[in-house]
Amino acid sequence: MAKWDNVKKVVLAYSGGLDTSIILKWLQTELDAEVVTFTADLGQGGELEPARAKAELLGIKDIRVVDVREEFVSDFVFPMFRANALYEGLYLLGTSIARPLISKHLVQIAHETGADAIAHGATGKGNDQVRFELSAYALDPDIKVIAPWRDWSFKSRTDLLNFAQDHQIPVPKDKQGEAPFSVDANLLHSSSEGKVLEDPWAEPPEYVHQRTVSPMDAPDEVTEITIEFAKGDPIALNGEKLSPATLFARLNDLGRDNGIGRLDLVENRFVGMKSRGVYETPGGTILLQAHRAIEQITLDRGAGHLKDEIMPRYAELIYNGFWFAPEREMLQALIDKSQEKVEGEVRLKLYKGNVIVTGRRSDQSLYSDALVTFEDDRGAYDQKDAEGFIRLNGLRLRTLAARNRR
Amino acid sequence: MAKWDNVKKVVLAYSGGLDTSIILKWLQTELDAEVVTFTADLGQGGELEPARAKAELLGIKDIRVVDVREEFVSDFVFPMFRANALYEGLYLLGTSIARPLISKHLVQIAHETGADAIAHGATGKGNDQVRFELSAYALDPDIKVIAPWRDWSFKSRTDLLNFAQDHQIPVPKDKQGEAPFSVDANLLHSSSEGKVLEDPWAEPPEYVHQRTVSPMDAPDEVTEITIEFAKGDPIALNGEKLSPATLFARLNDLGRDNGIGRLDLVENRFVGMKSRGVYETPGGTILLQAHRAIEQITLDRGAGHLKDEIMPRYAELIYNGFWFAPEREMLQALIDKSQEKVEGEVRLKLYKGNVIVTGRRSDQSLYSDALVTFEDDRGAYDQKDAEGFIRLNGLRLRTLAARNRR
Amino acid sequence: MAKWDNVKKVVLAYSGGLDTSIILKWLQTELDAEVVTFTADLGQGGELEPARAKAELLGIKDIRVVDVREEFVSDFVFPMFRANALYEGLYLLGTSIARPLISKHLVQIAHETGADAIAHGATGKGNDQVRFELSAYALDPDIKVIAPWRDWSFKSRTDLLNFAQDHQIPVPKDKQGEAPFSVDANLLHSSSEGKVLEDPWAEPPEYVHQRTVSPMDAPDEVTEITIEFAKGDPIALNGEKLSPATLFARLNDLGRDNGIGRLDLVENRFVGMKSRGVYETPGGTILLQAHRAIEQITLDRGAGHLKDEIMPRYAELIYNGFWFAPEREMLQALIDKSQEKVEGEVRLKLYKGNVIVTGRRSDQSLYSDALVTFEDDRGAYDQKDAEGFIRLNGLRLRTLAARNRR
Amino acid sequence: MAKWDNVKKVVLAYSGGLDTSIILKWLQTELDAEVVTFTADLGQGGELEPARAKAELLGIKDIRVVDVREEFVSDFVFPMFRANALYEGLYLLGTSIARPLISKHLVQIAHETGADAIAHGATGKGNDQVRFELSAYALDPDIKVIAPWRDWSFKSRTDLLNFAQDHQIPVPKDKQGEAPFSVDANLLHSSSEGKVLEDPWAEPPEYVHQRTVSPMDAPDEVTEITIEFAKGDPIALNGEKLSPATLFARLNDLGRDNGIGRLDLVENRFVGMKSRGVYETPGGTILLQAHRAIEQITLDRGAGHLKDEIMPRYAELIYNGFWFAPEREMLQALIDKSQEKVEGEVRLKLYKGNVIVTGRRSDQSLYSDALVTFEDDRGAYDQKDAEGFIRLNGLRLRTLAARNRR
Repeated sequence: MAKWDNVKKVVLAYSGGLDTSIILKWLQTELDAEVVTFTADLGQGGELEPARAKAELLGIKDIRVVDVREEFVSDFVFPMFRANALYEGLYLLGTSIARPLISKHLVQIAHETGADAIAHGATGKGNDQVRFELSAYALDPDIKVIAPWRDWSFKSRTDLLNFAQDHQIPVPKDKQGEAPFSVDANLLHSSSEGKVLEDPWAEPPEYVHQRTVSPMDAPDEVTEITIEFAKGDPIALNGEKLSPATLFARLNDLGRDNGIGRLDLVENRFVGMKSRGVYETPGGTILLQAHRAIEQITLDRGAGHLKDEIMPRYAELIYNGFWFAPEREMLQALIDKSQEKVEGEVRLKLYKGNVIVTGRRSDQSLYSDALVTFEDDRGAYDQKDAEGFIRLNGLRLRTLAARNRR
Repeated sequence: MAKWDNVKKVVLAYSGGLDTSIILKWLQTELDAEVVTFTADLGQGGELEPARAKAELLGIKDIRVVDVREEFVSDFVFPMFRANALYEGLYLLGTSIARPLISKHLVQIAHETGADAIAHGATGKGNDQVRFELSAYALDPDIKVIAPWRDWSFKSRTDLLNFAQDHQIPVPKDKQGEAPFSVDANLLHSSSEGKVLEDPWAEPPEYVHQRTVSPMDAPDEVTEITIEFAKGDPIALNGEKLSPATLFARLNDLGRDNGIGRLDLVENRFVGMKSRGVYETPGGTILLQAHRAIEQITLDRGAGHLKDEIMPRYAELIYNGFWFAPEREMLQALIDKSQEKVEGEVRLKLYKGNVIVTGRRSDQSLYSDALVTFEDDRGAYDQKDAEGFIRLNGLRLRTLAARNRR
Repeated sequence: MAKWDNVKKVVLAYSGGLDTSIILKWLQTELDAEVVTFTADLGQGGELEPARAKAELLGIKDIRVVDVREEFVSDFVFPMFRANALYEGLYLLGTSIARPLISKHLVQIAHETGADAIAHGATGKGNDQVRFELSAYALDPDIKVIAPWRDWSFKSRTDLLNFAQDHQIPVPKDKQGEAPFSVDANLLHSSSEGKVLEDPWAEPPEYVHQRTVSPMDAPDEVTEITIEFAKGDPIALNGEKLSPATLFARLNDLGRDNGIGRLDLVENRFVGMKSRGVYETPGGTILLQAHRAIEQITLDRGAGHLKDEIMPRYAELIYNGFWFAPEREMLQALIDKSQEKVEGEVRLKLYKGNVIVTGRRSDQSLYSDALVTFEDDRGAYDQKDAEGFIRLNGLRLRTLAARNRR
Repeated sequence: MAKWDNVKKVVLAYSGGLDTSIILKWLQTELDAEVVTFTADLGQGGELEPARAKAELLGIKDIRVVDVREEFVSDFVFPMFRANALYEGLYLLGTSIARPLISKHLVQIAHETGADAIAHGATGKGNDQVRFELSAYALDPDIKVIAPWRDWSFKSRTDLLNFAQDHQIPVPKDKQGEAPFSVDANLLHSSSEGKVLEDPWAEPPEYVHQRTVSPMDAPDEVTEITIEFAKGDPIALNGEKLSPATLFARLNDLGRDNGIGRLDLVENRFVGMKSRGVYETPGGTILLQAHRAIEQITLDRGAGHLKDEIMPRYAELIYNGFWFAPEREMLQALIDKSQEKVEGEVRLKLYKGNVIVTGRRSDQSLYSDALVTFEDDRGAYDQKDAEGFIRLNGLRLRTLAARNRR
């Protein structure tokens, strides 16, 4: 392919599935390039060894299978949760936050192996192509990024399957027709999009859901848990210290069982159209509530309000693929500065889709019953101060009212 | 009282309860002022006629009992919901939004009756004094606002009860001790604060809740509803056109029965301390989800993101009592401009605390399956465009990466 | 040209200069399209009739020459100045604000004449292509926009001149070599870019400047003027009521003579690179200072601060070409709401590059010497109020300090 | 004085002038408190030794005279200039930024000396009381802050002078009448307020200005300078490395001589009223332009725009006295993160009030003529990319236009 004439070696984000196997072969045949595969364990579930075997079968010499779960949670998920990030008020950014990590590894492997390009399997209509590519460009200005879905000449599913057949790529039975929806998954969430979900008036069928039971099918009993935080990140569950990925996996199990974290959303893609997705973020949904609860007693009002005001921008940057952009890093510096004393314990009840905060406590608490009590506060607060406070806050409004009456 | 020497006539926000009855009598005796009472039906529940009777008993000549429910919902609640307003990410501002309406009526009645002051029963530690007073000052720069809780010399509950007894104010049996918590209610919400809630680690007792069943006690069956919107406001429920207050009351009933809208929050007061409240906003919680859902298909991305970014500021203004401030009105102009075509229908399932959006449709929809489909879109979208889009979005990041590598 | 095969009639933004004449001929010959020309008098200076004559010479039947100066100032420049808009802190957006007006007329003429496309002469590296095209798309989703600089196969200036010669397009002597810089001009400003300006360390040569004398060459005498405002817009100069464009032209003359409004800037283009420009905005620089001065006494603090906070976003939207986007219109609604009582008079001194505000007065003034005076204010302000004001503003800081000391 | 009954030792911010001498004596006589004086050299000009002598004369045992100029510029002025901070678009915050430094020293000395209170000479109408007190409370939650102007019973200037006479405080001849305006000065600026400036329509008399010649009186010759930056701060002037305070003093001299940095402003005070001030910030005005210029070539667009958007909030926090609040520190973390590579050189011309940037260069430049040139860029930028960029940016606008046409 003329466009990629100079490409000699490509690092491919490889899942082992049919689509990325076709891409692998297309890179070999159309570009005549050597392919290095990178398969990441992001906690998506399922074995990775079959991906290795398949890559071998397709003639790959340099196969990288890496467990990045701890890195994913420590360096990407937790920093994002410090911000209470929600895109368009509702979406916990499960897909968005994984893409920069993958690009980071692809670029690193390119550097290690002397590859001149990386490749991904995202289509030309979605956000993921943007996230992969902006991340790669921010890490290496000269890297080439190949997005075969935008370049190849296949016009239909049949073309793809024919190509697979021509190149001895095994096609699983259930892939011979078109999937009723497409899925992305990692430790933070599963998302489902497309076909059966394309009518935003039609309720998502139950079978679309990947990793949560329905609230209606969840147990009738309440599950009570505690989460402990330090510097804004969860560090223990029910009193047990756990590594980031282990803790997150436990929260996912708890959320799954209790029907927590489903979201049916029509969102605005960065590439300009609206799309409908079904997201399941069981552990993240619990974590968001718990994090807000511990912030409630440990974060100053000025700090908290500033965080809330910049949050939509921060979430938008992540959604749009600007994780490695300086403005995201600047916002992160602001957020991290606020989290230094966000520590303590939160108690929650999980019940049929509900995450109910029932208590929070901290050695770093800013809550003071002495100040707030209806009873005698022994001088902690002088109610007379309120009069001056209100009068000076109101002075400009009174001046304005007097002017408007003139 | 020297401070209020010139006050001759006062309009009092009068609930008919013990506290405002004591205030009424205190205004008569300490200030030697004529008192006009204003009792508003904000949908708080309970009869208002007893308040009229009690005012008569206490010698009031000019007694105003007004049903302001439609005004409350049309002119205050709905405009606020157009913004998806949440204070500190969670609180639906049920108390905050009612205060400016009450002040507006107090000031109007003052003008009608030639009163030179208004009075309210909010304490010196809370936000409500600020909201009442800033609203009043913004509407009349010369109005005097009397906050007896800040001025009188009573030191304890016993002092208050003694004063009541001395002035033939009936004290209901259940008011002779101190209340385990205090309540504010209107059509939008009930809030509970104080005493049994003052330890933020202790779970709120079930009996604190005023207007919702617990999710655990809600029916095992799903309730499905539809809400229709026009210009950002709900206009019909299950196909039936309803007035704002009627519609809201119906949503409250639906929410109450399904355990929807409870919130246990530690929040930051404008007067500077943290306080813990339990809020119940059954109808509002449903409405917020439904409004976001109809916006998802009818609001442009740029419009929606701008709204999300200014929302925390808007909510803070309302919380702090600046409803009648020019910056709130400017933000409202911005928000209202965005809502012109926010219309259509949302379908939701209510189930044990869950509000589950299952569909949305609109004649003004911006959602296009032609654009988003995985299948052949017949040219609606050219995937090649994505390459240029990404490359130019990435140009500055590549320039930066090249610089940083130098 | 295959890409534009279906185009039958094109409305071209035509200046009468060499470049747009080549475009005109290219559209006729390469696309075999009928061309309608639109030449706007935006106050750029110079005659428009030669453009008409040249279009006739090139065989155009439908020639539109329109004086849009009043529309430009009333509907674009003044609304923008209500916001005190500055891009990147310094740039008055003189080019950016003219582009949507031109697109609006191009699309209107396309509708009137049944044209299926519009064309402009902006290159593929700049912001103007974006502004023209986004404006057009926002006004007509089906319009085709042809940007010949991106499409044609000319590789060099020589290719262009050869094409001109081949098609009997007269080439003025001074256009036979390459220009040392390129210019855009309208009633608001002149900009110069390119070649001699490309080294940001090299001082712009004096001959680059189009419409201002150097501060060093301006008169030694001060010129004093007054500007009167209503609803945020200037309506009179030195007591004389003038139409928007006339008033603006007068301000330009005053600024030009006094060396006002030069700017040497390296800015960030929307398409991703930095560029260096020299801008001259004589009248606009005066107007900005005057508008801020009248706002100082007529605008409430809350309103003013909100305006200041959203201003960078507003300016960025205009710079990037989103004039007709809903978020710009929402921000405009917010801004316009604030300007209702921005009226009164400002006095300024103009002197060798300086715009010095020396006074402002208004019937709608919010300034009160009674409040601010160091002398006896007869009770307008109670200094005791400040204590409570400070204590409650400081309460959270004290709580924090106590926590941090623990 | 009952209110301060428990105060035994007070640290007073002492200028040596009449007003703070009266306060000193008032603290001794009315509070019967031991007084420690703190006199800071902030670069306000004038000798400090007379203040020491006068304090001795008034019986002070513990007299602290400290040169804080380097600390002031390094830890307060430069961090603020990294943000390009302007309050209400124009004011360089010269008074605001000095107050927290003074409070910091007062509190430190209180800790060293076992004092239980600090005292300042700011009146009850201004912002400075707020700045002093919020800073103190943020550093020591238990510190008492005495503001004698709010507490004492003097009703007039005559009362003050009588008190001075009664207590053998020398009253300079020129202080026997009332000053025609009041002044604050430090290395960053001088401000003048009050009396002759109270009518915002009246031009400030020339004699009000403290530290700049009028532009009209400045030399006819241009002065050309260069400023070198590292990490966003100036480090050298005309090639000479200088300490922060020395460099700043030199800039002040240059600004003073060339009539630079005068501002006549009506601003909004935090305590609620508008006031008119005349500010002179000669060096700061030069520095702001120079800093923006070096940012223009070294700061990424995303970083720069984010800084511009948060700047008004940052400036407001400083103006209102929240220097030591967590939200200011969070914003500072964001700003400082952006400045890591803001380094290089700026060349400026100073001429009769004008600060004219004529060049900027940096080893960390992000400016690329290869990208921006009108001439052949040898493939650095592909103009075809612009088409996709525009089309996807315009997609939502076209969708909207199509909807609105339905």
